[in-house]
Formats: sequence, C-alpha cells, structure tokens
Amino acid sequence: MAEPGITPDWERRSRVGVAEAVYCAGKTAAQIGRILALAEERRQSLFFTKLDASRFAGLEAGAQRRLDFDPLSRTAVLDHGVPAAAPARVGIVCAGTSDMPVAIEAQRALAFNGVASPLIGDVGVAGLWRLLDRIDEIAAWRVVIVAAGMEGALFSVVAGLVPGLVVAVPTSVGYGVAAGGMTALHSALASCAPGVVAVNIDNGFGAACAALKLLRVFAAM
Amino acid sequence: MAEPGITPDWERRSRVGVAEAVYCAGKTAAQIGRILALAEERRQSLFFTKLDASRFAGLEAGAQRRLDFDPLSRTAVLDHGVPAAAPARVGIVCAGTSDMPVAIEAQRALAFNGVASPLIGDVGVAGLWRLLDRIDEIAAWRVVIVAAGMEGALFSVVAGLVPGLVVAVPTSVGYGVAAGGMTALHSALASCAPGVVAVNIDNGFGAACAALKLLRVFAAM
Amino acid sequence: MAEPGITPDWERRSRVGVAEAVYCAGKTAAQIGRILALAEERRQSLFFTKLDASRFAGLEAGAQRRLDFDPLSRTAVLDHGVPAAAPARVGIVCAGTSDMPVAIEAQRALAFNGVASPLIGDVGVAGLWRLLDRIDEIAAWRVVIVAAGMEGALFSVVAGLVPGLVVAVPTSVGYGVAAGGMTALHSALASCAPGVVAVNIDNGFGAACAALKLLRVFAAM
Amino acid sequence: MAEPGITPDWERRSRVGVAEAVYCAGKTAAQIGRILALAEERRQSLFFTKLDASRFAGLEAGAQRRLDFDPLSRTAVLDHGVPAAAPARVGIVCAGTSDMPVAIEAQRALAFNGVASPLIGDVGVAGLWRLLDRIDEIAAWRVVIVAAGMEGALFSVVAGLVPGLVVAVPTSVGYGVAAGGMTALHSALASCAPGVVAVNIDNGFGAACAALKLLRVFAAM
Amino acid sequence: MAEPGITPDWERRSRVGVAEAVYCAGKTAAQIGRILALAEERRQSLFFTKLDASRFAGLEAGAQRRLDFDPLSRTAVLDHGVPAAAPARVGIVCAGTSDMPVAIEAQRALAFNGVASPLIGDVGVAGLWRLLDRIDEIAAWRVVIVAAGMEGALFSVVAGLVPGLVVAVPTSVGYGVAAGGMTALHSALASCAPGVVAVNIDNGFGAACAALKLLRVFAAM
Amino acid sequence: MAEPGITPDWERRSRVGVAEAVYCAGKTAAQIGRILALAEERRQSLFFTKLDASRFAGLEAGAQRRLDFDPLSRTAVLDHGVPAAAPARVGIVCAGTSDMPVAIEAQRALAFNGVASPLIGDVGVAGLWRLLDRIDEIAAWRVVIVAAGMEGALFSVVAGLVPGLVVAVPTSVGYGVAAGGMTALHSALASCAPGVVAVNIDNGFGAACAALKLLRVFAAM
Amino acid sequence: MAEPGITPDWERRSRVGVAEAVYCAGKTAAQIGRILALAEERRQSLFFTKLDASRFAGLEAGAQRRLDFDPLSRTAVLDHGVPAAAPARVGIVCAGTSDMPVAIEAQRALAFNGVASPLIGDVGVAGLWRLLDRIDEIAAWRVVIVAAGMEGALFSVVAGLVPGLVVAVPTSVGYGVAAGGMTALHSALASCAPGVVAVNIDNGFGAACAALKLLRVFAAM
Amino acid sequence: MAEPGITPDWERRSRVGVAEAVYCAGKTAAQIGRILALAEERRQSLFFTKLDASRFAGLEAGAQRRLDFDPLSRTAVLDHGVPAAAPARVGIVCAGTSDMPVAIEAQRALAFNGVASPLIGDVGVAGLWRLLDRIDEIAAWRVVIVAAGMEGALFSVVAGLVPGLVVAVPTSVGYGVAAGGMTALHSALASCAPGVVAVNIDNGFGAACAALKLLRVFAAM
Repeated sequence: MAEPGITPDWERRSRVGVAEAVYCAGKTAAQIGRILALAEERRQSLFFTKLDASRFAGLEAGAQRRLDFDPLSRTAVLDHGVPAAAPARVGIVCAGTSDMPVAIEAQRALAFNGVASPLIGDVGVAGLWRLLDRIDEIAAWRVVIVAAGMEGALFSVVAGLVPGLVVAVPTSVGYGVAAGGMTALHSALASCAPGVVAVNIDNGFGAACAALKLLRVFAAM
Repeated sequence: MAEPGITPDWERRSRVGVAEAVYCAGKTAAQIGRILALAEERRQSLFFTKLDASRFAGLEAGAQRRLDFDPLSRTAVLDHGVPAAAPARVGIVCAGTSDMPVAIEAQRALAFNGVASPLIGDVGVAGLWRLLDRIDEIAAWRVVIVAAGMEGALFSVVAGLVPGLVVAVPTSVGYGVAAGGMTALHSALASCAPGVVAVNIDNGFGAACAALKLLRVFAAM
Repeated sequence: MAEPGITPDWERRSRVGVAEAVYCAGKTAAQIGRILALAEERRQSLFFTKLDASRFAGLEAGAQRRLDFDPLSRTAVLDHGVPAAAPARVGIVCAGTSDMPVAIEAQRALAFNGVASPLIGDVGVAGLWRLLDRIDEIAAWRVVIVAAGMEGALFSVVAGLVPGLVVAVPTSVGYGVAAGGMTALHSALASCAPGVVAVNIDNGFGAACAALKLLRVFAAM
Repeated sequence: MAEPGITPDWERRSRVGVAEAVYCAGKTAAQIGRILALAEERRQSLFFTKLDASRFAGLEAGAQRRLDFDPLSRTAVLDHGVPAAAPARVGIVCAGTSDMPVAIEAQRALAFNGVASPLIGDVGVAGLWRLLDRIDEIAAWRVVIVAAGMEGALFSVVAGLVPGLVVAVPTSVGYGVAAGGMTALHSALASCAPGVVAVNIDNGFGAACAALKLLRVFAAM
Repeated sequence: MAEPGITPDWERRSRVGVAEAVYCAGKTAAQIGRILALAEERRQSLFFTKLDASRFAGLEAGAQRRLDFDPLSRTAVLDHGVPAAAPARVGIVCAGTSDMPVAIEAQRALAFNGVASPLIGDVGVAGLWRLLDRIDEIAAWRVVIVAAGMEGALFSVVAGLVPGLVVAVPTSVGYGVAAGGMTALHSALASCAPGVVAVNIDNGFGAACAALKLLRVFAAM
Repeated sequence: MAEPGITPDWERRSRVGVAEAVYCAGKTAAQIGRILALAEERRQSLFFTKLDASRFAGLEAGAQRRLDFDPLSRTAVLDHGVPAAAPARVGIVCAGTSDMPVAIEAQRALAFNGVASPLIGDVGVAGLWRLLDRIDEIAAWRVVIVAAGMEGALFSVVAGLVPGLVVAVPTSVGYGVAAGGMTALHSALASCAPGVVAVNIDNGFGAACAALKLLRVFAAM
Repeated sequence: MAEPGITPDWERRSRVGVAEAVYCAGKTAAQIGRILALAEERRQSLFFTKLDASRFAGLEAGAQRRLDFDPLSRTAVLDHGVPAAAPARVGIVCAGTSDMPVAIEAQRALAFNGVASPLIGDVGVAGLWRLLDRIDEIAAWRVVIVAAGMEGALFSVVAGLVPGLVVAVPTSVGYGVAAGGMTALHSALASCAPGVVAVNIDNGFGAACAALKLLRVFAAM
Repeated sequence: MAEPGITPDWERRSRVGVAEAVYCAGKTAAQIGRILALAEERRQSLFFTKLDASRFAGLEAGAQRRLDFDPLSRTAVLDHGVPAAAPARVGIVCAGTSDMPVAIEAQRALAFNGVASPLIGDVGVAGLWRLLDRIDEIAAWRVVIVAAGMEGALFSVVAGLVPGLVVAVPTSVGYGVAAGGMTALHSALASCAPGVVAVNIDNGFGAACAALKLLRVFAAM
C-alpha cells in the first residue's frame, strides 16, 4: 500500500502573509523528520508548534541540532534566514507564570516572522495595581495579545483601558471548572468590553498569526 | 386520591437564621394561594421569589392586594411585621442595568429580614473608572454581593480591591456563550482572586441569605 | 428603596476608539427610554443592539420616531451627527440568507462609526464557485468579517484564500448539533487556517468594533 | 465462578456484508488471545481495531507472528485468505498528516474485505489549491471517505465539489475546542452541503464498513 | 445601504446530484417570497424544508397556492415538473408516531427527486416483534433510512439484521436526557453494529440526499 | 402517499407486566385521537402521559369526555376496567410542591395498574425534621419512589434511612445549574448510598413501571 | 494537627440490607490498610471496589494475603464468613467482552452477600440471534442486571423481551461520543421500554446492591 | 529574548486579608524555586497549593528542607513566622476519606494564617447517624467548610441543621457522572437549603480564604 505524499503549503507566506508552520501534536517523529528534510532541501525556514520534549527527543540527532528548540513553549525553529526582528507596536501580556508557555509561543512565532514583541508577565487582576503600573506601556501597542487562564478577567480589563486590539489567548491553566481553558475562552467571547477577539485555547501561535496578517495588510494596502 | 399536605418550614428563621421563602417557579397559582392562606392564618410574614407577573396576575384579587409585589425582581412580600431595616455594612454591586433584577431580589430579601443595603449599579469593568470612583464606599462593606452576567470579570476585580467577602451572583444576562449564565458562574468559581464564593445563577435571594446568616452568627456567637 | 443610577461610559470612543452602545436584550422599555433621554440631553449619538421589534414597539412614540430602527438586525441608531461613511477596506461576507441579520448588525455598527463596508451574501461553501467568483474583491480588504452558522466552513476557506484578517462571527443559524451556534464558533476557533479570530455567537457588533479599533490604531500611531 | 463464553458473530459477513471485527480497546491481552485462538481453529480471517502497540506487545509471540500489525492505524489482520483487492471507485481523502492513522484504518479495513482504495493526504482547506489539484480524481469515486479533525471544513468543501457520497470520519486531531474530535463531528453533521453522512470520531473502520455494505447491496440486488 | 443579492445554487443537481433546497428556519417570509419568485422566473422546481405553519401563513396568498405544503413535516414543493416516482429499493423505518414528521420529510424529499419510498412506522424495539414482522421487507432495501428519537436503539437493531446501508436520522423526540436528540444521535454514532452512518438531528432531508447521491453514482458510473 | 399504520403494543402487559401507554409530547391531536379510537374498538384501557392541557383541549369533545384527565400531572386514563387498587407497600415521597406533578404521574400510573400508593410531599432536606417525622411510615415500603429536583439530596438521605429500593425520579424543577433536571439526575446516580436506581428526568411513569414489574415478578415467580 | 477518625458504617447491612463496602479510588494504600485493620479487629467481612492492581500492590504483604483480589473487576473480599451462595433468580447479561469487568464486579458483590448469579456475556444487539438464543433463560430472572457500553441498545431490547426488572449498568466502553459511558447511560434513561432503571457508569456494585435490597424487602415484608 | 519578571502580590494580606499563595499546578520546578528565593530574601512566609509530590521532588534539596510539605493535601509552607493558631469558631466537615486531601488543604491554609480549625471526617449522609452524632459541635461554628464529592448531599443536609455559613467545597471524588466534581458542585449551587455558597472544585484553599476574610472584616469593622 503506497503511502500518500506530504504536501506542505510552501507558498502560504506569499499568499496570506504567514509562513507555513508544522503542528506536531498528532505526528510521529518519523513524519516530522520527513517534513524537516523537505524544508532542508528547499532551504526553507520552518516553525514547529506543540512539539513536546519527548517527541523532540525522538528526532534524529542531526535534526535536533538543526532546530532551535524551546521546551517551555514547545516550539522549534528551523532557520534558513529569518527576517531581523523590528519593533512593530505589538506586545504580549500574560496573567500568571503558568500562562507563560503560551505567551512565549506567540512571542517566538512573531520573532520567526521578523517582529520583536515585549512580554509583560504576572499582571493578573487579583492585584490590579500590577497592571495599572504598566498600562501606559501597553496603551502604545496596536495589537495586544493577552494570555490568561482561570477566569480570564484580564481580557476585559485590558480591553477597557487601552485602544489597541485585544487578541485573547485563553490558556488551559486552572482546575475544576477552569480545567481545559473553556472558562477563560468563554470569558473572552462574552467580554463586556467591545471588540475583544479570541483564538483557540493555548493557541499563542494563532494570535501571532493574526498580528502578522494585520501588520502586512495595513503596511501594504 | 387524597392530595398530600403542604409543609412549610415555619421555624427556619429560628433554626438557621433565614426565614422560609416560597420559590414560585414551578408552582400553580392555586398552590401559591394555599401557602399564602396558611401564612395569613399564622400571621407569619413570607417572602416569595421567582414570581413572574403573569403568575402573580393569576392569584385572587385579595391575595394580590395583600402582597408587596415587584415585577422587575419577581419578588413579593407578605408583611406581618418585618424588622426595621438597619445598616449592616452589607452592600450590592452590579455590572449592568440588565443585572438589576437579580440585584434587587437580593436587596429586597435583605430588607425583608431587617437589613438595609446600598446598591451600586452599572460599574462593569469595560469602563473601570466607574468602579474605581466608588471603591472606597465598597471597601467599607463586610459582605459585598456582586451581580454580573456575561464574562463576570467584575467578581475578580472587586475581590482584588476590597477586604469584604465577595459573594458572586452570576446572572443569565448575555447571549451566545454567555447565555444562561454558565460563563459568569465559572468565572466566579475560577477567580484568580482568593476567597470569592458563589451562589447559583440569578440567585440573588441565596446571596442575601448567606449575608444574613453571617450577620447572625457573628453577632450572636 | 432608591433606584441606583445608570452610568453610560460616554467617553469610551475617545478612550478605546468605539462609541458606547446599548445592549438591549435584558433591559425593560423603561430602562431603554431613560438611557435614550440621557443621550438626548447630552446630544450624544447612540447605537442600540439586540433590540427586538416587540421591545421597540414598547418605547414611547417620541422615542420610536427619534430612532433609525432596523428590525432584521435588531439595531437602532440615535443620530446626533454620525461621521460620514468613507471606504476603509473593511468588508463583510456571509454564508447564507439566514446569517444576514448578524452581517447587517456589523454593517450598521461600522456605518454608525463612519465606515462604509460592502456586504457579499450567500456564498456558502456548498457551492464554492459562488465564493470564488467574488474572491478578488474580498482579497482587497484589510479586515474581512465573515458571518456563518451551521458548520462554519466558510471561515477557514476564506482565510486560506485572502490576506486580510478574518474576524469570524459564528451565527446561531442551524438546528440539531448546530443549534445555538456552538458548532460554528468552535469551527472558527479550531480553524486549520492560521490567524482566524472569533467573536461571540451572533455578535456582529463586536466584529465591527474590532475593525474600528484596528482602523484607529493603525491610522493614529 | 465459571467465566462466561465469548461468542463472536462469525456469520456477520454473510448476513450484513461486513466480516466480524474485534474491537480491542477494552480487552485484556488474554481475551484477545482467546478470540484469536477461536478464529485459528475455524481458519477464519479476522480484523482487529484500536489495538495499540503496548497491547500487541502483550500477546504471545506466536500470536504476534500470525498477525499483520500496523502500529500507526492500530489495526491487525489474521489472514486465512482475504479476497484479492479490486478497484471499486471508493477512495479516501484526509486533511493532514495527523489524520493519517484513521485514514489508514479505513484503507486496511477495505483491503481486508477485498477493496483497494486510493488515499490522498494533506489536502486541508487552508491551502485550497492542494484539494483542487486532485478534485477530478476524487470526482470519479462513488464513495469518498473524508478523514479530518480540527474544524472539519473539508467535509463540506469536498461534498460541494463531487457527486460521490461523502462519508465523514471526524478525527480527534486538535487541541482546545477541537480536542476529542467533537468539533469536527459536529461540523460534518451540520454541513451546509446536503447528503454528508458521518460515523463516530476516529472510526475509520466504520466508514469502510459503510462503503462495503454499499458495494455489496448495489452489486447484488 | 444596498441589500446583497440572493444566490441560489441552481446547478447543484447537475453537479452533485441533489437539487438545491431552501432551508427556511432563519428566513423571513419576505426572503422566502423572493427566492420563490426567482424560481418561478426560471421555472425551476424547488424544495423547502423546516417551513413551519406560521411562516407559511405569512407568505402571500399567491405564493401559498403555488406550493404543495405539508405542515407535519414542515416541507413544501414548488412543482415545475418533478420526475415521476419510481421504485429504487430505498425505504424508511421509524420508531414511533412522534418521529413521523422527520420520516415524512425524507419521504417527500425523495419523491421530489423522483424516488418513491415505502415508510414503515411504529416499530420501536420495546415491542421487538413489530420490527421482526416487517424485517423481510426491509431486508430487500439497499438504503434504509431509520428515524428514531429517545435512545435510538432501533439503529443498531436494524443494522444488525439487514444488509442495506442504515442511514440514521436521530430525532429530537423525547424529554429529559433525550431532549434535543443528542442521545439518539450519539447512539447512532456509537452503534455496535458496523457501518451505520448518521445525519444531523431531525435532518430527514439530509438522509434523503445521501440516498439520492448513491442512486445516481451507482447508476451512472 | 399512503400514511403508515399505527401499531400499539397491545400485548405489552402480558409480556412484560406493564400496559402500553401513549407518550403524547410529540404527537398531534389527530394522532392521539386515532390511537384512542383504536383502543375504544378493542375496549382496551389506556394510559396517556405528557398530555398537556392545550393538546387535550385540541381533542374532539367526545374524546375529552371519555378520558379522566389530570392537568397537573399531564396524564389521562381511558378506563375500560382498571384493576381495583390494593395496598402493595409501594409509596412516593417528594421534595417540594413543585415536584408534585411528577409524583402524581407516578401515583396515577400505579393506580391505573391496580396499585394504591401513599404520597408524602414537601419533605425536602432543608428542614430534615419533616422527613424524620415520616420515616417510620416510609421504612415499611418495599419500593420508595422519590421525586426531587434542584440538588436531589433527598435520594441519598432516604436511601440511607430505609430498607426499600429507592427509585429516584429527578425532576426539572430549579433554575441556573438545576434547570432541566440534570443536577438532580446526576445526584441520584452518584449517590453515596448504595443501591439507588434512577429513571429519566420527570419520568414518574417510568418509576411506576419499575415498581409494577417488581410486584409482578416477585409475586409470580 | 490530629488526623480525623475513620468511621465505617458497620451497621449498614442491618439497617438497609447491604453491607458497607469500601470505595478505593481516592484512597491511599495507608488509608485502605487502616480500614482493613479495623475490620480485622471486629472480624467483619468487607468488600472493596475500584481497587486497581497498582494500589493493591501497595498494600502490606499481610493485607494482600488476607484479601481475595480480582484485578479484572478491581474488587477484593475480606472474608470473615460470607453467607453461602443460593439461587435467587437474579442474573447478569453483558454486551461485549469489554463490559465484563463491570459485570463481574456485580457478580462478586452479589456472591459476597450470599447470592449466586449466572452471567451471560457477548450478546450485543449487532448479532441479535445471540441474545434470542438465551432469552428463555433470562426471562426466568426477577432482576436482570445488564452491563453495556457504546450505544447501550441492549438495555431496551432486553427490557422489551423479559418480565424482570432491568437494572442498566452503562459502562465506559467505547470511544469518540461513547467515551466515558455517557451515551450508554443516556440510552438507558431514555429507553423506549418502560421501567428500565439505571445506576452510575461502571457501577456494577450499585446494581448488585439494588438487587440485594429487593431480595431482602420482598422476602421479609 | 529577556524573560519577563515574576511579580508576587506581597501586599495582598494587608489589602484583602489573605496572604499571597503560590498555585503550583502549571509551574516548572525552576519557576517555583525562583519564587521561593524571592520570599526568602524578603523573609516572607508563603503558602504553596497544588504542589504534587513529583514536582516537590524536583526542587533543590535546600528548598525542600525549607518547606513544610504535606503530600496528601499537596500543600507546603515556607515559615518565617506564622501567627499562632487560635480558636475562631471555624471548622471543617468532610464526607469521606477520599475528600480528606481537600479538607486538609483548607485546614493548613487556615493554620498558616493563624486560625486553628477542627476537622470532622467520614460523616457522609448514607449513614446519617454519623453526622447527627456530631451536629451539636458543628452548630457552634460560625463558618462550616464542607468538603464532599460524589452527589454532594452533605452540603444541603448540614446547611439545614446548623446556623453557620456553609462554604461548600465540591471535590473531584467519584466516577461516572461524578468524575471531575461537577455533580457535587452543581449540588451545592442548586441546594434547597438557603445561603449555601460554593468555591471551585477541590479548592480547599479558597474556602479557607473566604473564612479568613470574614474573620478579619467582622473583627475589624
């Protein structure tokens, strides 16, 4: 039985402004290895998401060496020339230390596409002064990626205070009713602050893509 | 087939500190009428919850006259001597105008048991300054009943700012993922601010009962 | 018992770029009337959402005359000088005729804030040629608001074909597993096309707000 | 306490057109071993589903040798004469590499019953051209098994483009709202393209059975 | 603000074998009227689903006269030459009288496309002899549409007894855990009988479409 | 198109010990009328469940006269000789007045089959003394049908105190998380008291059937 | 901080007819050991449920030797004189081999309380003849415990064929929509066959308790 | 890429009456170590929750020695002077041995803040006498923390018997419908006993915080 081919969408960056990335959660090490080899042949940079440490360890040693791997955010970069990072008035805010892996996934995806972004952590609303101390800085951003789990109150509070678009990334941080991230997601969607938009739970990569598309279309058109 | 008797728990106030109240949602007008008659015989004050206007209209004219009915909060009072309302450092905050019926249910239940309580409305977090303007007043309360629907971010924000116990009353205000109040409820339970407690969706009466029990046990014991 | 005040956030437009709007679903006609009166006093334009025909009919005749009401999208405008609509490279696509009310809610909210937006209807993926016929036009937009119910496949298909940011508005159109809009919402969030963002079910207003915030921050900063 | 007997439905192929298969997920290695022995005695071919590698490793060495095991699709074949595979205008399409195990489960179940089927992978709608490149081939099939996870948009897009019956196999590929496969399943059921049918999440075997039943009843009746 | 056009997919029958049908649940009477007028102009037959009696009554008298309306199944036919019904070995079975509207929706959709189909009602498994009495008749069908609500046991029982493909149509008949049809749907998908396929809850039309596609592709290819 | 026949299971009483009953929720008045006529012809007694007042009013006057209808429990009896009610040590307990309709449905179904049963109402656990006052009476029953909504604590408390089998009938009484009866149902199933069994939400009829089957098999075998 | 005492309900057998059993899922090996020691002191027999092999292995060697442990059903017996098993017309039916652990839990709990019970396995409805072959035997039982996962059609089919009370034990066998057992549970509760009662998912012990209570109250009263 | 700072809310005790605590579930050992070091520098006591044994084992040996760790409740204390525990009429009741870890989490959090609290275990309602034996003791408490899983009937029963405020802590103890704790949580929220309040599932820490806030505001104001 012949195995069907793998068909990466190499032209995605030119078509929709975000480079193809490889979602690793359901793939075997062998499959990831083949995709990596294809990219090497074309000398194409590639971004890997949801690549956990044990799967990374399953890759061949040569493949491991070729990748810039971050175990906390479960991302890896194959670097054949990534654009130099430049300031773009896009930033990331996250509620607690536990939300950091998702925030860093977003930060690294932005950097891979040439956009440097500040990351402000540990400003959950239980101690509101922590956020208010940094609010002027956040108010200067055009896109504000907010990563928060538990009850996700931070989405609404930030959106009520700054003019930038809040892209909410609910995280699966929490237990009981918060387990899995559904409460934070619904909090973002039901926000009383108008104009909050959301991506999937733990999808820091998706939030970065939204920002990248905006930077491109507002620059080019 | 003989109909089984109705057995109100007349001694509840002396036993657990909150007077018996009549939950009207699943009862016929005839059943409500019979309970009212029993209370009249004993000259006992009685509080009715979830009594909507159409069911109230189905009561006999005499019964309607005997009741102090509020259609917005769907509550009614049969008054055979209700204690005079006194200040107790219990107050109510609500996020938007749509949450008002639930907030007023709490306020009327407190008043029925002799506790006057201020009610501050329309201080949702989308415009945080509205809340900050009133925060000193709220910080003086020992029990803060907070009624909010949609994403319920107000629970966490208030609890992070004041020392009183926040009793969250999620409301069924909202649509889409907020419909029915589950998002606001989960937001209260998953709050990153420690010590928030919650009652059932739209249960302003229950929040009032919690406050009443506290006033009694801390006064008496 | 004194009724608590109503506190609209009149300064929201200057603070976060979107004018205050009145969510009417849980409010009585009397409450809506009082808000309208407050706006008239200040000669402030106001946008009303989720105002169904029966509640509109409950307003006083004078109030009804002052409003530009659209029963399909359940929106109304109180007009004390709304900015002239100008082209902004923001557009709306919707899957079927049943999604139109939500699409028009978005269109009217944009217009209220001075942004004219084309609306392309009835391009669901069951007949893909309908979408492909219009794709060049859509590819010129910077923000593409997509309203779709049922399985919401349109979100992913559009996002794979055009460079603009897709703001998905899932609608409650459909029955069985689609009833209520949860399937379309989850479809948007789980999209295999990177960078799709979502707002709450039936929240055309929210999608418009996101677009407005973007136009403002990219113009001003 | 006597153990109750195991009663495979050996006549299922003659009665409903699909041979009995053994669902291994909840069975111990000992139980699977006994069923295998029964089949060996009768010299009956048998198909095993959801047999993961660790459970396979728990079988006796002799049993392992008798089986053609595929760890990716978690299927195994005991071969006492399986019909030669012949072309039947049934094919399989899958959205991404992560959906491949389920697609191969379907392909192997078809082959076990004598039906060869092409398998086209990695044609998710985020890069629609990949699907359009292959659409003529797919349009020649009478039954199109489509395996997709995440938002499952592929079901509707394929069904809108080709005349064959689309049998949707939602997969559990994805995270957040997509975790477990419910979003893809609901997407299939709520499809705006008429005539899509669905089987359970990850049930490639079931989709193959549906195709086999069709081939038999349309050939024989 | 110009209203966007309505774009029926008139060529759907030639492309995928099932004529365009109009889903009426979310449409106004005015919108349905416009679609009807478009079809009249083209002298195109049209099938309407989920058209309840009150909405039908809202159509203009002329439109009502032109339609063959059935209030039980909430379907209507605009007839500009529908193919003569011919036997096709497709039949419908339904569990109880309450499931009949959905069964008839399927039957009328088949008839509209030229396929006559017997309908056997009231053969729920609580009285299994009722089904066994008719099983020989059902065993002669190539496609067996089964409509059942409550626990949906009928899907598995029929599929275990006959060779035809069982297309399960779960219905929203039932209360408590059965309310809405989710239990019957999950019963179909989790069936222990291999090869059962399912369509959305109450989607008799969809089941008919699946049968029509099969008849066409097995006849033509 | 010939209408399919209605096939009541007239022999159910002799086969499984409980007479056929007609579930009216999804049936039209015409359908109920035809079933009634069939029973009249055979001079067969018949029990109707979930027959609400408006549907009853839609029956022909003659049909209405022939039935003993109870609007509270939404049941009706067609009486062609129902067995005389005899004591059987089966009784019913219900938590509150709002649960009464379901309790009476059970009581009437028992009476229809010749079993008289006491009904004790308004003994919810919030005032435990009400239950303890009656516990000796309940302890004499072999089957204890308990109807309760809200949190359903009564199921566990009764089962911990008496030797009879507790058949829990969760009711849809309550709001917020209790709405629909799922909380009470899960409470019954998760009971810490061993041996509690449950029927569907609001299914007083089903609980009565369970008791009837027990009385028959323990008497006869 | 003094540890609170453990308080087994040693008198449960005399009060409600079923001996106390120890639910082990959330307990540490140390806690289980202490309970065992308490029972040894009183020379009291004890039944342990949900005791998985790894936790059993964590008990002290002496404790392990004192217990009759069955890893498949995760039950153990401490035997200080268990009543001799006698025939009682109670039996167990289970749908597939994967349901066997739950069925055996029920069988062992019955045996521990002196009731021998036949167990008929592998009679799922996909091959209905397997059940019909054994139906006369099953029809002689007064209580029929049915363990089934997946779609749980067996509950309704058995209940429609035999006079005994069907106590449904849904199992967590299955995947996709069947995962966790909710589909089988809902199938039991929504059964179209009257009088089916259900216990919690995988709760073979609870079904046995229900049977034991029935045997006692019908014998004694 | 610079790592963002960690910003504990050191002033929380003085602001809202409960000291900052560290939620460890989503944090790496390295992150926990850094927080510990910060506290050591400031000589600040600190409470850690949801710190499981394997993560504790990952801390450096010096850090482990500095902490008073309890594996059952997964809590740890860094002690730089914790107030001496004094009686406060706050106590804890728990339903079964499996609920003990959550109860102890509450007890240790109270002790960390200087409040000694009795803990009464194993008083589930299946053997009501166990609770009634201790009820006078419980009736003397002002705040009664009740930890219960499964069906959570204990919340309502206790609240009906004593005057103190019942703070319900639903636990994730149980299986089937009780798995995860949602049933117990909903039971608390839907309680028929007025004034029960709830915290998140397994959140013994949160219940303790609520009690601490009450003790402070009623003492100070």
